[in-house]
Amino acid sequence: MAFSHIVRFTFLLVLSASLVFASEPSPLQDFCVADNTSPVFVNGVACKNPSLVTADDFTFSGLDKPGNTSNQQGFAVNLVTVDQFPGLNTFGVTVERLDFAPKGLNSPHSHPRATEVLTVINGSLYVGFITTENKLFSKVMNKGDVFVFPIGLVHFQYNIGDCDVEAFSVLSSQDPGVVRIANSLFGANPEISDDILSKAFMLDKKTVDYIRFQF
Amino acid sequence: MAFSHIVRFTFLLVLSASLVFASEPSPLQDFCVADNTSPVFVNGVACKNPSLVTADDFTFSGLDKPGNTSNQQGFAVNLVTVDQFPGLNTFGVTVERLDFAPKGLNSPHSHPRATEVLTVINGSLYVGFITTENKLFSKVMNKGDVFVFPIGLVHFQYNIGDCDVEAFSVLSSQDPGVVRIANSLFGANPEISDDILSKAFMLDKKTVDYIRFQF
Amino acid sequence: MAFSHIVRFTFLLVLSASLVFASEPSPLQDFCVADNTSPVFVNGVACKNPSLVTADDFTFSGLDKPGNTSNQQGFAVNLVTVDQFPGLNTFGVTVERLDFAPKGLNSPHSHPRATEVLTVINGSLYVGFITTENKLFSKVMNKGDVFVFPIGLVHFQYNIGDCDVEAFSVLSSQDPGVVRIANSLFGANPEISDDILSKAFMLDKKTVDYIRFQF
Amino acid sequence: MAFSHIVRFTFLLVLSASLVFASEPSPLQDFCVADNTSPVFVNGVACKNPSLVTADDFTFSGLDKPGNTSNQQGFAVNLVTVDQFPGLNTFGVTVERLDFAPKGLNSPHSHPRATEVLTVINGSLYVGFITTENKLFSKVMNKGDVFVFPIGLVHFQYNIGDCDVEAFSVLSSQDPGVVRIANSLFGANPEISDDILSKAFMLDKKTVDYIRFQF
Amino acid sequence: MAFSHIVRFTFLLVLSASLVFASEPSPLQDFCVADNTSPVFVNGVACKNPSLVTADDFTFSGLDKPGNTSNQQGFAVNLVTVDQFPGLNTFGVTVERLDFAPKGLNSPHSHPRATEVLTVINGSLYVGFITTENKLFSKVMNKGDVFVFPIGLVHFQYNIGDCDVEAFSVLSSQDPGVVRIANSLFGANPEISDDILSKAFMLDKKTVDYIRFQF
Amino acid sequence: MAFSHIVRFTFLLVLSASLVFASEPSPLQDFCVADNTSPVFVNGVACKNPSLVTADDFTFSGLDKPGNTSNQQGFAVNLVTVDQFPGLNTFGVTVERLDFAPKGLNSPHSHPRATEVLTVINGSLYVGFITTENKLFSKVMNKGDVFVFPIGLVHFQYNIGDCDVEAFSVLSSQDPGVVRIANSLFGANPEISDDILSKAFMLDKKTVDYIRFQF
Repeated sequence: MAFSHIVRFTFLLVLSASLVFASEPSPLQDFCVADNTSPVFVNGVACKNPSLVTADDFTFSGLDKPGNTSNQQGFAVNLVTVDQFPGLNTFGVTVERLDFAPKGLNSPHSHPRATEVLTVINGSLYVGFITTENKLFSKVMNKGDVFVFPIGLVHFQYNIGDCDVEAFSVLSSQDPGVVRIANSLFGANPEISDDILSKAFMLDKKTVDYIRFQF
Repeated sequence: MAFSHIVRFTFLLVLSASLVFASEPSPLQDFCVADNTSPVFVNGVACKNPSLVTADDFTFSGLDKPGNTSNQQGFAVNLVTVDQFPGLNTFGVTVERLDFAPKGLNSPHSHPRATEVLTVINGSLYVGFITTENKLFSKVMNKGDVFVFPIGLVHFQYNIGDCDVEAFSVLSSQDPGVVRIANSLFGANPEISDDILSKAFMLDKKTVDYIRFQF
Repeated sequence: MAFSHIVRFTFLLVLSASLVFASEPSPLQDFCVADNTSPVFVNGVACKNPSLVTADDFTFSGLDKPGNTSNQQGFAVNLVTVDQFPGLNTFGVTVERLDFAPKGLNSPHSHPRATEVLTVINGSLYVGFITTENKLFSKVMNKGDVFVFPIGLVHFQYNIGDCDVEAFSVLSSQDPGVVRIANSLFGANPEISDDILSKAFMLDKKTVDYIRFQF
Repeated sequence: MAFSHIVRFTFLLVLSASLVFASEPSPLQDFCVADNTSPVFVNGVACKNPSLVTADDFTFSGLDKPGNTSNQQGFAVNLVTVDQFPGLNTFGVTVERLDFAPKGLNSPHSHPRATEVLTVINGSLYVGFITTENKLFSKVMNKGDVFVFPIGLVHFQYNIGDCDVEAFSVLSSQDPGVVRIANSLFGANPEISDDILSKAFMLDKKTVDYIRFQF
Repeated sequence: MAFSHIVRFTFLLVLSASLVFASEPSPLQDFCVADNTSPVFVNGVACKNPSLVTADDFTFSGLDKPGNTSNQQGFAVNLVTVDQFPGLNTFGVTVERLDFAPKGLNSPHSHPRATEVLTVINGSLYVGFITTENKLFSKVMNKGDVFVFPIGLVHFQYNIGDCDVEAFSVLSSQDPGVVRIANSLFGANPEISDDILSKAFMLDKKTVDYIRFQF
Repeated sequence: MAFSHIVRFTFLLVLSASLVFASEPSPLQDFCVADNTSPVFVNGVACKNPSLVTADDFTFSGLDKPGNTSNQQGFAVNLVTVDQFPGLNTFGVTVERLDFAPKGLNSPHSHPRATEVLTVINGSLYVGFITTENKLFSKVMNKGDVFVFPIGLVHFQYNIGDCDVEAFSVLSSQDPGVVRIANSLFGANPEISDDILSKAFMLDKKTVDYIRFQF
């Protein structure tokens, strides 16, 4: 690693780590590595013949690579579910790395099958979740801080600093799912009708169409 | 019941029934009726002394009463969780009645701890849910139809007919929670900052403030 | 719907709704629609290829149709498990409609894998369950009342009025099972021996044979 | 142990062992010994201060003592649930010893919260369970045989030999419950009405009253 | 059974019964007998076509046969998991018989997926488990005593008497697994490196190699 | 942060992150923050009055602080369970930071209630786990690699490089527990008898006493 890279790494790349969770069926054997090519579909994923399993099946590589945050939200996520990492099958967990450019936003979203826990490695993130009683719990997190986002609740993370932020996530499901609110409503395919969206957000249909056009 | 009432009931009050679900810890005894006044807080609710339990503890009344749909959304819901019906404690289920005026909308929302199943008793509802891949599954439901809304996914029900619609809901949690998207984001208390909402919905802050003003 | 039908519907068809529940493994993906033709048997049901799933898979029709109660018990049930409604797979719930003629009886039975919740839509039902300490909790339920029958306990519903009663049931399992006591003991195939039944019920074998003959 | 006792033990006391099971919430700490005197009621049982726990809390004594089978059914059971053995709390299991006199019957019953597994130590038992499709699976078990009775299904064990039989049971719940069919229906307190029982069993009320009189 | 055998059985074969447990996914149907020859691997075991199931599938034979304790540890175990007894599938339990020669040891081990409960039928066993705070709970168990070994904790049973001891075990998983500490560390294949074992046990590598040589 | 510190941080402090998991009861409400001072003991921890909960309850600080590895094993761990971080209650997860000096060892241990997932942030770790069939799966992990250690299996991590290594752990339980093998066996209090340890490890008692003396 070149010296200039070190400096950039240390000064520009502010880090955080987030972990996400939820309860799933217990494993019924030592391991059940996913066979993502199986023609048989079950609750979860069918498994590879255990006699063919090697240590590589329990390894995933690449979480050291920053995501590309050159986009409108200034945000990138590398979600490592059982689809990418077969060794997670039956173990009820997904890991992810999040990268935020300055002012980068992990926009309001929820995980239908997972609680999330987030640890900031370096720098500062403004994070929050909204309860089912519409109460916002928010906090500025600093390096080494951990935060919990309960299962199914809408939450966000926002880089309020001037540096990049890196995040690691753990979610309590091998396939936690992400419901990104704006995209889910305004970017659904097929479209959710104007009648519904304009009534739900108390907006005229022109504005609804305008928002939808962004997604 | 007067004849005129019968006609009004039959012609104007179109009915539906929705049921909602999710998996929770099993009961460890015949019953554990919630003691909602207990000073002890646990995962779920502490229970009443079983020797004081009567048949009334297993009964809830009032689901025959239509909700008041004279509001902007033309919608009312009577959610009967363990808070209102202590006998549901440890049994992992909530029931609810939904009433829709013509054009009434149960706006996009999710249940963080429950799958929902909906049966239309009378009339027609347009219903849908959006997957974590932003795919919309929607359907016009008629009298006697049942529909499933998976745990944690955003869904809606919209009365596309000219008659009132009644709905019964079952959700797979004794306290499923409702995340009503528009209210959760634009009606949170304290407010979610303009920076976050305008970036998430790609709207100018003025429009964000306008929407927030409605909630 | 003809006018005469409306009147008959309103006056003769007294309604109730019952819901039944129990805790099962959580879903590990958005949905896992049952493939009831799969040659692979698992705990639950193997799933359809998710890319072939449509909104129709989440819909079941026909709960508006009354069952035929022209039988000795004056009772009919339309149990909609994962076998009839593949969309319920992994969601831990079954719905059912029950119809009672006057004096109609849903005879003592238990659900080995589900708690049940019952809501009376119209009319009156006498319902009860017996605890493991042989204590009877019973109640006359009226229109709009909800009642809970705990998992595995013997319970019954009896139409004590002069009108038909309709019921909707939700049970907390995708395949709750019904153990109908009299049929299970006296109608088993092959037969349970006279020695066992006469000793269990403290009856002479002739009476046992007489009862068995009815089933 | 005197020689005569040895002979009696060996020749007269034919042995069996039955084990019963079901799935419950996982323990969240090393142990949580039940405090059966706690004024706080929860799903399961509140726990003793862990710093006061000793090895004795994990021990129950007395399963070597035969039950008294001098009764009409020729059967005795010593069910060791969390009520008798606080150390079982959170571990989802109950043990029991069953003793059968010749022709002794563990009459048809079900466990609402547990699967059962039965091992015959000595001698022969005729056992069976009835599925939800009223199919009887039955078998004569001999010394060293193990048999499974699925959760919630009605089952029985009958001593068809000329010797006493001893049984050990394990049930998959810390409080599995026993629904003994005949007693539950004909011995309920308060009584289940004649109307219901006579209709359910297709018996005249006089016979119903006669049976009820036995319980 | 010959007289000499009776005496040997009674005096030499001191008996105990141990039961072991843990929580697993609930069954979703009456039964799901394992098809151990299925080419499809899932969490647990795929099932046999239910229409081909017979009473024999729910039966396992041979727990009356003592194990051969003529080995260095003076101990034998017959672990009956879902692999040997397909009827256990989905029911979350394994049974086992343990036999101890005088001074026989069931050496320190843990069950990664099961709590264990042990009942002494005859004779005396010294048993213990070590908590996660390295506290030893130990006890001399006599005939008819039951003991609980919590899930995942290291435990042992040691025959301190002069007679053989028999044990029955129930473990709360259909495949509980056994981590036998000494064998796991010193008998692993491939070997765990000397660096690690000598540092972990604070032993010189020669001693590590000596121990490893035994396994 | 001084320049020299940056260099030291970057070159000497090689980083890793490990995550650990297991399945527990689902939350039954939005949150249930642990009240670690409650006099009431339950499975898990009793909760704080939800109306008193603030965002601080969902935050834990200090995972940016390296542990002190100046000890014989060259290893330090900061395990953040529900005891240190009340906001984790009911969410089934623990986080931890691990620091390794060069040749530092996280000696063979298991988590009785959790699967673990480990991500290397920087540098190299040699890691492995041993199955219940005594098969070793091992791997050299580099920066950004993730590894899974199944629930209850013995595993280790060893710093084979010349730099310090930092690790973050997530375990799938709010109180996963650590069974550190050598300490559990040779450092138990009270002591496990020489008879048992010498027989288990096939060592003379003098060597057993020697090892025990280290712990």
